[in-house]
Amino acid sequence: MIEHPAFSTEPWQVREESLNLDVLPQSESLFALSNGHIGWRGNLDEGEPHGLPGSYLNGVYELRPMPYAEEAYGYPDVGEAVINVTNGKVMRLLVDDEPFDLRYGTLHHHERTLDFRTGMLHRTVEWTSPAGRRVRVRTTRLVSFTQRSVAAIRYEVEPVSHDTRVVVQSELVTNEQLPPSDGDPRSATVLESPLQPEEHHAYGANLGLIHITAKSRLRVAVAAEHHVDGPDGWQSSAESETDLARFTVVSRLRPGQRLRVDKAVAYGWSRTRSLPALRDQVDAALAAARHTGWDGLAREQRERLDAFWEHADVEVRGDQRLQQAVRFALFHVLQAGARAEEQPIPAKGLTGPGYDGHCFWDTEAYILPILTYTAPEAVAQALKWRHGTLPVAQERAGQLGLAGAAFPWRTIAGRECSGYWPAGAAAFHVNAAIAAAVVRYVACTGDADFEREVGLELLVQSARLWHSLGHQDEHGVFHIDGVTGPDEYSALMDDNLYTNLMAQENLREAAAAVDRHPEEARRLGVDEGQVRCWRRAADAMAVPYNEELGVHEQSAGFTRRARWDFDATRPGQYPLMNHFHYFALYRSQVIKQADLVLALFLRGEAFTEEETERAFAYYEELTVRDSSLSAACQAVVAARTGHLDLAYNYLGETSLIDLRDLKDDTRNGLHLASLAGSWIALVAGFGGLRRQGGTLSFAPRLPGHLFRLSFRVTAFGRSIAVCITPDEATYTLLSGDPVVVRHHGEKVKLTPDSSETRALPEVPSLRAPRQPKGREPVPFAEQ
Amino acid sequence: MIEHPAFSTEPWQVREESLNLDVLPQSESLFALSNGHIGWRGNLDEGEPHGLPGSYLNGVYELRPMPYAEEAYGYPDVGEAVINVTNGKVMRLLVDDEPFDLRYGTLHHHERTLDFRTGMLHRTVEWTSPAGRRVRVRTTRLVSFTQRSVAAIRYEVEPVSHDTRVVVQSELVTNEQLPPSDGDPRSATVLESPLQPEEHHAYGANLGLIHITAKSRLRVAVAAEHHVDGPDGWQSSAESETDLARFTVVSRLRPGQRLRVDKAVAYGWSRTRSLPALRDQVDAALAAARHTGWDGLAREQRERLDAFWEHADVEVRGDQRLQQAVRFALFHVLQAGARAEEQPIPAKGLTGPGYDGHCFWDTEAYILPILTYTAPEAVAQALKWRHGTLPVAQERAGQLGLAGAAFPWRTIAGRECSGYWPAGAAAFHVNAAIAAAVVRYVACTGDADFEREVGLELLVQSARLWHSLGHQDEHGVFHIDGVTGPDEYSALMDDNLYTNLMAQENLREAAAAVDRHPEEARRLGVDEGQVRCWRRAADAMAVPYNEELGVHEQSAGFTRRARWDFDATRPGQYPLMNHFHYFALYRSQVIKQADLVLALFLRGEAFTEEETERAFAYYEELTVRDSSLSAACQAVVAARTGHLDLAYNYLGETSLIDLRDLKDDTRNGLHLASLAGSWIALVAGFGGLRRQGGTLSFAPRLPGHLFRLSFRVTAFGRSIAVCITPDEATYTLLSGDPVVVRHHGEKVKLTPDSSETRALPEVPSLRAPRQPKGREPVPFAEQ
Repeated sequence: MIEHPAFSTEPWQVREESLNLDVLPQSESLFALSNGHIGWRGNLDEGEPHGLPGSYLNGVYELRPMPYAEEAYGYPDVGEAVINVTNGKVMRLLVDDEPFDLRYGTLHHHERTLDFRTGMLHRTVEWTSPAGRRVRVRTTRLVSFTQRSVAAIRYEVEPVSHDTRVVVQSELVTNEQLPPSDGDPRSATVLESPLQPEEHHAYGANLGLIHITAKSRLRVAVAAEHHVDGPDGWQSSAESETDLARFTVVSRLRPGQRLRVDKAVAYGWSRTRSLPALRDQVDAALAAARHTGWDGLAREQRERLDAFWEHADVEVRGDQRLQQAVRFALFHVLQAGARAEEQPIPAKGLTGPGYDGHCFWDTEAYILPILTYTAPEAVAQALKWRHGTLPVAQERAGQLGLAGAAFPWRTIAGRECSGYWPAGAAAFHVNAAIAAAVVRYVACTGDADFEREVGLELLVQSARLWHSLGHQDEHGVFHIDGVTGPDEYSALMDDNLYTNLMAQENLREAAAAVDRHPEEARRLGVDEGQVRCWRRAADAMAVPYNEELGVHEQSAGFTRRARWDFDATRPGQYPLMNHFHYFALYRSQVIKQADLVLALFLRGEAFTEEETERAFAYYEELTVRDSSLSAACQAVVAARTGHLDLAYNYLGETSLIDLRDLKDDTRNGLHLASLAGSWIALVAGFGGLRRQGGTLSFAPRLPGHLFRLSFRVTAFGRSIAVCITPDEATYTLLSGDPVVVRHHGEKVKLTPDSSETRALPEVPSLRAPRQPKGREPVPFAEQ
Repeated sequence: MIEHPAFSTEPWQVREESLNLDVLPQSESLFALSNGHIGWRGNLDEGEPHGLPGSYLNGVYELRPMPYAEEAYGYPDVGEAVINVTNGKVMRLLVDDEPFDLRYGTLHHHERTLDFRTGMLHRTVEWTSPAGRRVRVRTTRLVSFTQRSVAAIRYEVEPVSHDTRVVVQSELVTNEQLPPSDGDPRSATVLESPLQPEEHHAYGANLGLIHITAKSRLRVAVAAEHHVDGPDGWQSSAESETDLARFTVVSRLRPGQRLRVDKAVAYGWSRTRSLPALRDQVDAALAAARHTGWDGLAREQRERLDAFWEHADVEVRGDQRLQQAVRFALFHVLQAGARAEEQPIPAKGLTGPGYDGHCFWDTEAYILPILTYTAPEAVAQALKWRHGTLPVAQERAGQLGLAGAAFPWRTIAGRECSGYWPAGAAAFHVNAAIAAAVVRYVACTGDADFEREVGLELLVQSARLWHSLGHQDEHGVFHIDGVTGPDEYSALMDDNLYTNLMAQENLREAAAAVDRHPEEARRLGVDEGQVRCWRRAADAMAVPYNEELGVHEQSAGFTRRARWDFDATRPGQYPLMNHFHYFALYRSQVIKQADLVLALFLRGEAFTEEETERAFAYYEELTVRDSSLSAACQAVVAARTGHLDLAYNYLGETSLIDLRDLKDDTRNGLHLASLAGSWIALVAGFGGLRRQGGTLSFAPRLPGHLFRLSFRVTAFGRSIAVCITPDEATYTLLSGDPVVVRHHGEKVKLTPDSSETRALPEVPSLRAPRQPKGREPVPFAEQ
């Protein structure tokens, strides 16, 4: 937890006003820059002190052995782990004869600012060396959205007190020594020196290092170019060795004089391209960056972000921390997805090595929904990546004795990297999340080419999976047995309701897509009988319900199990999985994260209002939110059922997760799905957004703390602005043809250049659901 | 599989009439000698060729790390693995200048005989060296039942063709190089050089080596003494180094002259005793052996076995292979249990390193029943060992969030060594098997001291476990959720019927034992309320039953699951676990081994005859017998339900498992539980033995192939002989007071010195149950 406000509350930026070494590892994650291809943690320019150095390239991983105390058939024996690639951020400084190191000397001023509109990280420092030389350092860093292979740094140093000789060393550093693993299973595997040298060079202001990973055989090329501006008389030199390339500038400065070094860094990697090809690729990227120049890169960055905020901004009045948090969240979601381009969007984006850099269902279930309504081109790219891994997923399905494709629980390149199958292979619902993301994207964008070329096959292969995974009992009911739902405190259950309902939709949507693309479907081997079977299975899907209690069951038999003894559980025993054996958790009614509640959210139409209320109340009492994926879903259902304060508190939890380090692991990277949850909670929760086929419906309701919420969504070729106040909601069609939306069920026709305003209905006064003792959400104001 | 009859069929021995190197590893297991403390595999005296060298001391293990691809709370991180201790069997021979190695030269005759009555392994060889020197070698080996620390060898060599100089080297060899693991999960962990040297000596005819294991810190001392007898002129010498001690005898022999070396080997080990103490211990054992002499050791061995067979022999007429197999089985069960003395009886005994030398529920559920009726003192010892591990089991229960004690799924010294908890920690039924063994032993022997000092606490702690493990639902039904029953093709199920019924008995018997020993129970913290709760839980125990099908369910919901597609399963895909993912198995109706059928056997009184028949038929169709623990239980229930030919075939499978290497892993050690199953199938199956409280009842029925079956059981201070022919059964009270037994329900009073004969009732003609396609048992005659 970040106990005290380490960062200022401002609407468009995160600012750290002084250096706080206690939260340095967290700040490196918060200040991380990324375009989805390159990721640079917010490490200090001079490299040290650091929490965790981190430079990542999406898709670059090393293989690691996966050992088992007891082997069994079908266990993956090698996994993938993201590696820290060549660090292009390092800018060391010598002030006279002393290194610029903030652990020594006197720090007068230190400020870092992540600006959501410029997309840059700014830093200003004023420092006196132990020998009494005072200098000002100002740096700006960006990872370009417009030039995908390029990151850049502007580094400026200026003496304040004396004539000073300064030496700036701009470096590329490979195989940095990393701190040892802390043993937290959410942390990363630490791989020693993952990169083997292939080539290095340094001439003039140009540096280059080329390496290759030992086992995964991925070639990584990094090159840097520098432009120096300073008073006459500066000199430079450059040298390289296998794991280090260095450009050095020496200058003598008088107070007020400034030495500026602009550095452009280009990254490239490939499994297939030759060394010369890759080297040319990064040099070409540098040439383009040189042509654009620093100011050009900064301008392009700003323009790209202006365009994003134009469609994506969410404005909140009444709570400045929430305003900041939601923009912080949107900014990082964009960073993760913007240019991933047929690579995965990992759970941590490229902000840290947590979960070994793996991509989970988080992407399709939490991140792609936002991007669908705000930056849909990124969604197509992310799903193309999944599509590219189909051969591996089909092979895996075969290994599991199933038809179609079984996508991995966690992966980088497509292979299953989960080492505990009851919460890995058995969590088949990932496949439904992928299918749902396809359906959502196609419905919102009408991108028929995508559906034909990418979406259809994903739907067909997942439908085949479900059909082979389930079976019809003697009464014709279709059951899916022995699977694990989102709640990881249960496993290997029959008829997990969330899974069943998501599979049902998957089967139906696959059938519908086949109807739309009969020829392509035939080419995939789909025949009419198959489609009939899918529809029949969907219609016959088991939906477990406890008649006595009048609530749906998370899985068959779940509500009959013993309740967890919450009274006997101490606060320090959460998260439970760190203090109790899976066995104890699995056999009890205790829920790690929204599972049935997620079904209430995503398949809301499958439940009556009363069923939703009863189920929400029942499962609230059991849900401990030991997963960061939970609060947002609970916020949505709380808002829909009229528990607005509760929804608001959950919104706080999901949106402040990293700014306050609520899960105590922000150091390993940001919780992108939870951050995405801020948008989900606001837009689907308080905004009440649902898509029903080709219609958007809204059911706005504001919690007492907010007096305005406005957001924009892009769908069906329209951009619609929604502005909600405590009493009314106003809908504006910003672009596109007239369209009908729904406001609390009522049809509202939107036409260009005019707004429609509707009153908000009264919120029913309901008994607030209860949470397990000690697991009530902290009121937003106290978070 | 041993394809051709490699061993002769004889009633009291296993004889190999020629050397068959193809089955050398299997023969080493079959010819293993053990007294439960020391185990010597049947390796050739000269050490090579070998399949797998093996010398074991019960309780001597090394720790090995247990790695996980994904760690979680409560996973054991170190396991125990049996190690190959110092080999005291090696007797090398030089014939003139050529080593006696059967891979070279000409082998005229080679015979090895394991004799069940003498308890010795005999070997005779006649061989001509490549240089043309023909010799006869005769050796006999025993591991003493009467002198627990002692094994002995008589080694004789005699030239046939020429005057020959012979050199005999008698050795102690530590840290032998072992063949690499074959990757079979049933095999052993191979630990390189597990023993660190502490001391070695050689003086006169006396050798000694003392070592200690690196991590488990167990000290192992071995000493040997020799007596040489030969024509005048022989010379001897002795030397030692850290891992080798050697006594060498040189003699020049004329044809017909014989050199004889008698070797006594003493083993000792300890976790606590000092080096001098342990050294004295083995020297003292040698002194005792010297005092007894070779002939004395052989005589004692014979006498001990005579006494055993007196009470334990099972005579079968009509099938010589069965006769041999059942005595082979009884002999090895005795070897495993006779002198284990507060050490475990491992699944393989001390015949090989399979399953890392671990002890499973096999001991209590399969081995102790025989020993209870034939050698009850060994049962008390085995249960004292369990009792000694109570502190570890109580700690483990705490770690699992449970009360009482949770005994490990597999272990040597008491810690949980299972690396896959769904088939390890979750298989709580091991605790019920231990309790049932206590109950059986106490009922049969009336050993009240044992019950007070050992049995009561085992019952109390296991009852506490069950009570905390289950819970009462709103209707008052007691459920045990999320556990794994004997069938390892299902896991983490609710209300496994076998587990529930065994727990029910455990709870009731614990309550009854508390009533018998109120004071000791109070000392264990048992109060009346606790006992009431146990009884209430037992009375309210859930017994899953499918009303529609009219069969009991293996676990709640089991009969609703999809049936395994047996038609699509090829013969080469068995055992299924080696070719299918656990997920695929777990979600299907497919059964590895008797589970509900074991409940039909052990808790027969809980089912009507019709229920038993229906359930047996239902589960037969699903049971693939991929575990060696299955056939015996199926044999019993088949016999009880009148399917005598089926029972007979299952009896063949369980009894020939190692003589025919049916599971293709006899090389790693014998399947003691399956061997014990021969007795179970004969006595509880065809004999129909059941104990109901203090009464034995029989329900004899013979399959068509047998025309006589006689066996003896010792219980309640009586020895009773039962002789069954196709038409009648005769009961004889051999010793003890008059007693009433039941013959097919009818009371029969037995008095000394007279026999009671009763006719066998007609066997009803029933439709034979079917097995999964391709998994029908092979007819006995073809096995």
